Amino acid sequence: MNTKHISLEKIKISDPFWNDVQELVRREVIPYQYEALHDRVDGAEKSYCIENFIKAGKVAAAIRNGEEVPVYPADKWQYTDDNCDKNAFHGWVFQDSDAYKWLEAVGYSLINHPDSELERKAKEVVSIICAAQLENGYLDTLYIINNRDEIFTNLRDFHELYCFGHLVEGAVSFYHGTGDRRLLDAACRFADLICDTFGEGKIRGYGGHEIAELALVKLYEETGEKRYLDTAAFFVNERGRRPYYFDVERGANSAGEAHHYNQAHRPVRQQSEAVGHAVRGVYLYSGMADVARHTNDNELYKSCLNIWENIENRKLYITGGIGATVDGEAFSFDYDLPNDLAYSETCAAIGLIFFARRMAEFAPLSNFGNVAERALYNTVLAGMSEDGKSFFYVNPLEVNPLASHCDSRKRHVKPVRQKWFACACCPPNLARLISSVGEYAFGESDSTFFVHQYIGAEVKSRVGKIKIQSDYAANGDVTITADSAVNLALRIPDWCGSYTVSAPHTVRDGYAYIEGATEVSVHFENAAKLVKCSNRVRANIGKAAVTKGPFVYCAESVDNGENLQMLVLDSNTKFAQDGEFLIADGWHETPQNSLYSDFSPADKTPCKIKLHPYYRWGNRGENEMQVYLRIME
Amino acid sequence: MNTKHISLEKIKISDPFWNDVQELVRREVIPYQYEALHDRVDGAEKSYCIENFIKAGKVAAAIRNGEEVPVYPADKWQYTDDNCDKNAFHGWVFQDSDAYKWLEAVGYSLINHPDSELERKAKEVVSIICAAQLENGYLDTLYIINNRDEIFTNLRDFHELYCFGHLVEGAVSFYHGTGDRRLLDAACRFADLICDTFGEGKIRGYGGHEIAELALVKLYEETGEKRYLDTAAFFVNERGRRPYYFDVERGANSAGEAHHYNQAHRPVRQQSEAVGHAVRGVYLYSGMADVARHTNDNELYKSCLNIWENIENRKLYITGGIGATVDGEAFSFDYDLPNDLAYSETCAAIGLIFFARRMAEFAPLSNFGNVAERALYNTVLAGMSEDGKSFFYVNPLEVNPLASHCDSRKRHVKPVRQKWFACACCPPNLARLISSVGEYAFGESDSTFFVHQYIGAEVKSRVGKIKIQSDYAANGDVTITADSAVNLALRIPDWCGSYTVSAPHTVRDGYAYIEGATEVSVHFENAAKLVKCSNRVRANIGKAAVTKGPFVYCAESVDNGENLQMLVLDSNTKFAQDGEFLIADGWHETPQNSLYSDFSPADKTPCKIKLHPYYRWGNRGENEMQVYLRIME
Repeated sequence: MNTKHISLEKIKISDPFWNDVQELVRREVIPYQYEALHDRVDGAEKSYCIENFIKAGKVAAAIRNGEEVPVYPADKWQYTDDNCDKNAFHGWVFQDSDAYKWLEAVGYSLINHPDSELERKAKEVVSIICAAQLENGYLDTLYIINNRDEIFTNLRDFHELYCFGHLVEGAVSFYHGTGDRRLLDAACRFADLICDTFGEGKIRGYGGHEIAELALVKLYEETGEKRYLDTAAFFVNERGRRPYYFDVERGANSAGEAHHYNQAHRPVRQQSEAVGHAVRGVYLYSGMADVARHTNDNELYKSCLNIWENIENRKLYITGGIGATVDGEAFSFDYDLPNDLAYSETCAAIGLIFFARRMAEFAPLSNFGNVAERALYNTVLAGMSEDGKSFFYVNPLEVNPLASHCDSRKRHVKPVRQKWFACACCPPNLARLISSVGEYAFGESDSTFFVHQYIGAEVKSRVGKIKIQSDYAANGDVTITADSAVNLALRIPDWCGSYTVSAPHTVRDGYAYIEGATEVSVHFENAAKLVKCSNRVRANIGKAAVTKGPFVYCAESVDNGENLQMLVLDSNTKFAQDGEFLIADGWHETPQNSLYSDFSPADKTPCKIKLHPYYRWGNRGENEMQVYLRIME
Repeated sequence: MNTKHISLEKIKISDPFWNDVQELVRREVIPYQYEALHDRVDGAEKSYCIENFIKAGKVAAAIRNGEEVPVYPADKWQYTDDNCDKNAFHGWVFQDSDAYKWLEAVGYSLINHPDSELERKAKEVVSIICAAQLENGYLDTLYIINNRDEIFTNLRDFHELYCFGHLVEGAVSFYHGTGDRRLLDAACRFADLICDTFGEGKIRGYGGHEIAELALVKLYEETGEKRYLDTAAFFVNERGRRPYYFDVERGANSAGEAHHYNQAHRPVRQQSEAVGHAVRGVYLYSGMADVARHTNDNELYKSCLNIWENIENRKLYITGGIGATVDGEAFSFDYDLPNDLAYSETCAAIGLIFFARRMAEFAPLSNFGNVAERALYNTVLAGMSEDGKSFFYVNPLEVNPLASHCDSRKRHVKPVRQKWFACACCPPNLARLISSVGEYAFGESDSTFFVHQYIGAEVKSRVGKIKIQSDYAANGDVTITADSAVNLALRIPDWCGSYTVSAPHTVRDGYAYIEGATEVSVHFENAAKLVKCSNRVRANIGKAAVTKGPFVYCAESVDNGENLQMLVLDSNTKFAQDGEFLIADGWHETPQNSLYSDFSPADKTPCKIKLHPYYRWGNRGENEMQVYLRIME
């Protein structure tokens, strides 16, 4: 059964938990990022983002005027004052995407919360962007500024199709938020150029960093232009075929299965394992699921499902994080989920939520919502500080600040959130996801309204007006009312041992289906509990984590003293709530000073272990943190 | 109390355990390495070692004849056909040392076991080396072949003083093994040049890879030439002073404490923590202890002792390995002893044994012998396969072959020994240590014969002729007889719970001191037992290792099935011996297929756990290995 998410204009969030998070993004993150794009944040590394669009606009004008335009090298990932001409492109090859992601977040935010001043600023940015577009529709400032002759010659590394994808996502959101078509028209013109350039009998290439696939489907959905869907399908189907395009474009000839990093090592229909750069992976898989749904391609869906199951059952942190290794920011091998070396990039968890929604749209199994929930309430929210001013790129499950400072193997694992990143992909990605969270919460088929995530809101569904009142995050209580009898499908969260539904229902694929209801109350029992990880995961043997509802908890040394590894949970613990903390029973081992000694049970004294929601960790300065604690059976 | 080790000519090893190991080195390793030095091993990367000496000999002759000599760059760590002229130096900057280490092993071996054919081959090698020496005494083939003008201009990186150190060690051993003075004379000429070049009022430099310090002391002990000791002391005392010499030689100005990698970040007397490249570290600390002993420098000794205690109490694997991180092959921070990411280079464990002997010579505390024993019976012996034909460079305490193949973070962790290494430091280092193990076993003061390691031997000590009959490795039994009444000091091993000494004795600093004995029998109770690691070491929490006598044991999957992490030791286990294996009681957990589930004690079935001496692991093909196993209290 196909379902569809509900667009943001039809959703008004009013949720005690999510309102605050969205407000933080609206009040702090979006304005901060606006300043960052304009290089006006003291102490932050320069973005050059708007500056590049302005430079590109001058080049575009010069070309229109038939003037001579200089050429600079387009051969690096990052361009700085030290390595390039001051008139050339600056920043990372994917720098344009920051503006698009910001505009996407702004579009969503304006739908949720009109703000004329923000709209004015965003329109200015759009003007600057539109002025940079070449007459043929091309729009990527690196090549416009530096070298027009090299456009589309390094698809593997240089992110033109990636920036295009974010342009589309930003344009669609900006149009919905403002009614201003300019950026959408620009996106369509670039999309038209791409459709003219790539395909059968044309360039048989595809992007090194996927996203164009899902973006072209979104543009197809927005415009009805079939060639956008066709080109998305081409990108999906061409990927990984031999000869490898990434070899062809550089005259190479890779032996064996090269190109894992870009998921281009074999045709996607023959892929069943999540490999390579994790963000790229989930963006591709999202595009594959989109194409599968629009073309009723069950074979392609089956590949998506195989990959999904590989992630869900073997490559997923309890926090919803994916991409276990820093090397290539990539998926590691099955069951390799180290806590202290974790990469678990914020953007990868966001991309997993994209993938989950598309999978649920193809066929609503509760697995998709369950995993999206893990990612959303834990890794994604952990990505942002409580004041909205600093961010995690990497989301470890165990941190020893000493190791982060002394051990180069863990240099990526930061013990506190950072103000901004040279490669600033995560903060704007967070802003756009949180601002559009409603699109991931609800769905509809011809006859049924789906609740994938329990976020309080009023929704104008095509099956009726529906109101969700939710205390889900706090106590698992949700009431759904409709203005007329509707069919409902409510995800039963996987963490929930028992639940009550106030109306007759049948359970299928993890959803409670209710026919013709006007009011339904549900309660998901959300007592704190101990969770274990499969013993195939070496890092978690003999340990347990604590969860309550959708939240994973962790211990921090600010609450429990140093040497968190000396804490032992009592498997018979009761849990007490203390504000946002959970208090568990356990022991604290006495430190052993002798490095090696004859075995004897550790001296330990009973203690209370104070646990903090994972997404809240690291807000009180540098300190140790552990999600998994040793447990005494 | 100063003591001195006993030179090899006075020791005849006859030990059921060590005879076999020495024979393996004599029959397999030394001949194999001879072929490797000559680039005659099929499939092994070329060494170029002898080839370089031949090239350098031609240059030296040309210089003597006043001929024009070409110049090549001396600017890389490794020189190959791809990056240099075919007539230039080839291989690594430290390639000369391989020949010296081989000659050192040969010298020891010839003392232990005369062999005229081996002696003939070694003398040929010595002839080739001596022909390469310049008239001023300089002898390093990289600079002789490539550029005489750049001699001693990059002490930090380019290993001239390192190769010199190995030349001295090889020369002294070769002289003792053959009576042939040629290489010793060459070493003295090079030493004279070094003494003329470095010191107060001369170049204030020192080697980037330490060893010249201990080598100069050895040459002083061999020749009585005081300036060699003085220059060793200069190298030791100058190290780490500001301005940093490694900055001076390249016109740099490092802020803060640079040069940790080379232990040159501060004066050695202000160092109390083992840092940087582990092999370099222990070579330096050995030289420091040597200088301290010969100059009665208690302040310097105190630094050595502080560093020793830092290693012994915070940076030592149970296997005697040191240098926990691959990054810089270096000591990590205190208590950071990961099992699966371990570096624990074979050469570092060997260097630790060098350091331990020198510390015991300054003052015999049993700690030194205890730690040396750990290293010797575990990491060092593990370095070589049971057929003497393959070697470990890295000695992990936990291996999952899948991780070694798939996870770039563990690429250094090999699941089986390798035939030879491009950087072939460990195999010849093993050969020289094992061939000279007697020099690490015994010591003497004016009045007392010391047994640091219980290796069966006949020893001509200055206090009398002493015979050690040892079944120490097998059952902890040792009998010591002397041709006349002697004073004995016998190390009481730290693993031993109870022991008996057949003669009246007093215990001091971990040694049993016996006066005027002609026969003493000792028994060290060596039952298999469980050992725990301090709970400050995060990797080993909730786990235990098994030891028996000096040996650490490990589980291998060839004996116990895959997923060794699912094994749990019973803390009340009895142990049974089965040939070389120990059999312990425990459980095997049933694999849990669900990645996350509500906590419940793992399903497990009682099983026998088969344990193999660590030094024997990896001789039966690729398989999982774990030293530490989870334990149920």
